[in-house]
Amino acid sequence: MEIAEARRCIAGRLAPRPAVMLPLAEACGRVTSEPLRAVMDAPAFDQSTMDGYAMASADAGPHPLPVDQSLSTRMEGIPRGTLRVATGQPVPGWAHCVVPQEQCSIDADGLRISDDTSLATGQFIRRRGSSFRAGNEVLPAGTILTPGAVALAASCGCTELPVRRPVDALHIATGSELIAPPALPVGWQIYDSNGPMIAALLLERDIPCRGEKTGDSPSTLLHVISEFMGDLILVSGGSGPGEQDHTATAFEDSGFEIHISGVNSRPGKPLIFATRGHQAAFGLPGNPLSQWVCFQVFVRVALAAWNGLPAAELIAADCDRGESWECSGGDGRPTWTPARAAHDQGRIHVHPLPWQHSADLLPLASANALAFGAPDSQTGRIPVLITHHNPSPL
Amino acid sequence: MEIAEARRCIAGRLAPRPAVMLPLAEACGRVTSEPLRAVMDAPAFDQSTMDGYAMASADAGPHPLPVDQSLSTRMEGIPRGTLRVATGQPVPGWAHCVVPQEQCSIDADGLRISDDTSLATGQFIRRRGSSFRAGNEVLPAGTILTPGAVALAASCGCTELPVRRPVDALHIATGSELIAPPALPVGWQIYDSNGPMIAALLLERDIPCRGEKTGDSPSTLLHVISEFMGDLILVSGGSGPGEQDHTATAFEDSGFEIHISGVNSRPGKPLIFATRGHQAAFGLPGNPLSQWVCFQVFVRVALAAWNGLPAAELIAADCDRGESWECSGGDGRPTWTPARAAHDQGRIHVHPLPWQHSADLLPLASANALAFGAPDSQTGRIPVLITHHNPSPL
Repeated sequence: MEIAEARRCIAGRLAPRPAVMLPLAEACGRVTSEPLRAVMDAPAFDQSTMDGYAMASADAGPHPLPVDQSLSTRMEGIPRGTLRVATGQPVPGWAHCVVPQEQCSIDADGLRISDDTSLATGQFIRRRGSSFRAGNEVLPAGTILTPGAVALAASCGCTELPVRRPVDALHIATGSELIAPPALPVGWQIYDSNGPMIAALLLERDIPCRGEKTGDSPSTLLHVISEFMGDLILVSGGSGPGEQDHTATAFEDSGFEIHISGVNSRPGKPLIFATRGHQAAFGLPGNPLSQWVCFQVFVRVALAAWNGLPAAELIAADCDRGESWECSGGDGRPTWTPARAAHDQGRIHVHPLPWQHSADLLPLASANALAFGAPDSQTGRIPVLITHHNPSPL
Repeated sequence: MEIAEARRCIAGRLAPRPAVMLPLAEACGRVTSEPLRAVMDAPAFDQSTMDGYAMASADAGPHPLPVDQSLSTRMEGIPRGTLRVATGQPVPGWAHCVVPQEQCSIDADGLRISDDTSLATGQFIRRRGSSFRAGNEVLPAGTILTPGAVALAASCGCTELPVRRPVDALHIATGSELIAPPALPVGWQIYDSNGPMIAALLLERDIPCRGEKTGDSPSTLLHVISEFMGDLILVSGGSGPGEQDHTATAFEDSGFEIHISGVNSRPGKPLIFATRGHQAAFGLPGNPLSQWVCFQVFVRVALAAWNGLPAAELIAADCDRGESWECSGGDGRPTWTPARAAHDQGRIHVHPLPWQHSADLLPLASANALAFGAPDSQTGRIPVLITHHNPSPL
């Protein structure tokens, strides 16, 4: 199956998840399932934007003016006159403007305004409803909740928001060669890096992930998959067609329907995608670089679909590497290359970080993007999937 | 003080924080304080990259070949011959190449290789140390730990990494007009949105944040600041020079030294920055949009400095809005405007989201960037600070 077809297949098989109400702090970073409508005007009353004095323009003279210094926070029934107001405080209906305190002086007789002071109508008054009105949609469905969006919801009196229900994930590392510290590798043993990688990729997206190791045992693998009650299973290794590859069989024998078995992608050829009811499962290549690529190119499509969003698209970027690198496999499969993306003078540049082999994790230490194929010979641009925030969020 | 000078002042007053060892899952997203050197070669032995048969090129004929089907995982003492190997398994020193199993057939007499099969030296063998050698620096100090970097560390047998010590923050909302649900606003009361905003901005960066409300009481504010034992205090409101503004006094009376008191920025004029030993404190404008801008432009500089990193720089982006908007205040202060950044054909475009007033949260619902001033009349480009991941991390 071609890459684009596989991505369409994954998106098409997964419906947006049900809505759940989550407190604002937990909802941050998640996706709204319904629009949020304001229940009141914002601001809810005419208010001063300065520390100063509210006055009707007709009250500007003669000086000095009698002044009410009480900093009243009442909304109504304030007698017409010159009224002291602080930033954010209500301005009475009779007021035409606010004069900042820096342009005023007070003495025993009252208030004097500097000669060149503006008394323009509406000056330093924020009108009721000037941000939005009760009933306005302030957050559309499908909003990724940034801190700014969370603050907007809080300002409307929300303490929780309807978002797509969080995903519950399981990672299964297969292969009896995998060990964890403090054990030291013996023979062909290696430290498992796929488990920590998947946990970190999911944690970045606020998705908790349990980890299991099933060694080379098909029956253990089958048992773990059969018993799984959560949403997403990611199996590292065993997803190829070899006789030692048990992932496809375990998916089928535990009631999953396989929709993808092998993709024309390098790395990532032995990808499996399967569903069982609302659950999704991926068989991922056991080599860590391959697994990282498959997560970015395929698993993210599932996460987007569950959130009711389109998958992240590849963007065109300038390729700033003169020399060529291996952009396709011996069998012509188009190649993904980790890359470092940066911005310069309105343009996006990527520097490819070619890999030695599909267990080569070194390029991932500095990658924040994934380039596809070779640069266009005319434009020098290359399609790129952004994988991490750039510049840094710090 | 000018904006650039204020950013330099903040960066210059804060040293990189001490190192702490954190488990990989907690270290993800944080910044390494020391380089990581590999303790072993990667791979640690010559290994097959395919399921197939290891052979010396001289062993290719005559057919059929006797074959050892045992899938040995021993590293040494394997007799020369044709040896079955699985992906990732050791290849004996005498082997010149691996032939994939798809190009072989086995019967009772032994193994036959297809006629057109390549036997190139080194084929499908991943050589010991081809990714990196023991002693190589694989993660420099100052690396922001992505999932790929975490996987690289895990593959080296690390379970924890030295990172800059996490920050412990406190947000103080001042102002007696602030309420929280389920209370309904009376008079000039409003829902606090600054607390949820700051909590979310810090949570995005894995910084836990306690929240306090001190109303209009200078003594409560002073008490809370005096008692604070953590790293970062952010006070919303009261940071101006007015008689109702108590933040600067509270900082000074609790032993903080004030380095910045007012910046030539719109919004953000009444910014305070102060330090007490290793602690930092900011007085932020009480209006939510202003607070968001000050966090992005100033507080992030402190977080970067504590991590030993340079502050995120503004980048140049094409401005795709034809009509003009208010790019400076009446007093000439340069203006920050929330914006929506997107990529197209190798270029970065921003669409400004002008604000009505500094309490206007609506533009923040869709902002992922912050534009500064007006587009250049020649190039149409505008300086931009990226505030959120784009495209989405999903």
